[in-house]
Amino acid sequence: MPRPVTPQIAADVLIRLDDQPDKLVLIERRHPPYGLAIPGGFVDVGERIEVAARREAKEETSLDVELECLLGLYSDPARDPRGHTVTAVYVARASGSPEAADDAKAVVLADPADTSLNMVFDHRLVLDDYLRWRESGKLTPLRFGDR
Amino acid sequence: MPRPVTPQIAADVLIRLDDQPDKLVLIERRHPPYGLAIPGGFVDVGERIEVAARREAKEETSLDVELECLLGLYSDPARDPRGHTVTAVYVARASGSPEAADDAKAVVLADPADTSLNMVFDHRLVLDDYLRWRESGKLTPLRFGDR
Repeated sequence: MPRPVTPQIAADVLIRLDDQPDKLVLIERRHPPYGLAIPGGFVDVGERIEVAARREAKEETSLDVELECLLGLYSDPARDPRGHTVTAVYVARASGSPEAADDAKAVVLADPADTSLNMVFDHRLVLDDYLRWRESGKLTPLRFGDR
Repeated sequence: MPRPVTPQIAADVLIRLDDQPDKLVLIERRHPPYGLAIPGGFVDVGERIEVAARREAKEETSLDVELECLLGLYSDPARDPRGHTVTAVYVARASGSPEAADDAKAVVLADPADTSLNMVFDHRLVLDDYLRWRESGKLTPLRFGDR
């Protein structure tokens, strides 16, 4: 049987620095769509998704992150204007100073509760879910319809 | 930029029947690899992963399932002999009587602790993670290397 076509799969990482745990490391994207994003990117064929998450975090922020948990999956077909992508969002910690590289034009240390952040994709929703998790320990709710 | 090639994405569902909550609904596969499997299948482009999980459960077991939580992601590149597939495994409940359809040749109600079950893919590992979750509430651990 031929292999069916599925959405693409990515991993994103919510990075807390040990010395500023109230903030998150975000990136300013070098490529469209322009704006702020949670560090992450596509999983390679042959690569575990946890490994992809750490690799993408390192490539974009120069940080060696320790993944703490899987917050949830985001699969709204409209979440990425480039095509349907399912992303797995992890919470992670790191020490040291982030430095932008690769697809990241700059690194920003931001308060995730700041609603004036110009987040791309569905990353505002992800930040809201993260804030809820930080308060209550609840993971991303399962979603079946519109955001 | 061209879209990169990523692993394929699937969803599988651990279904507990309300009147036999100690067992799980498994399927005997109609297509290779032959053996017992957790009901599930590939996510369609344009479809949320939660919707795909419910659709696949319905197609293979005729049950309308209620997803309870995301147990975890399985992304070992060797887990599916047909090619690298990342699967999201959900825990669900259902009532009624399962009936095999579509890719399922038969439906089996099995004790997930029965290690003599002839499970395909990495589904023995998934069942072990499920048993741990049922005992302790712990989700699938993050994995970076060999099973």
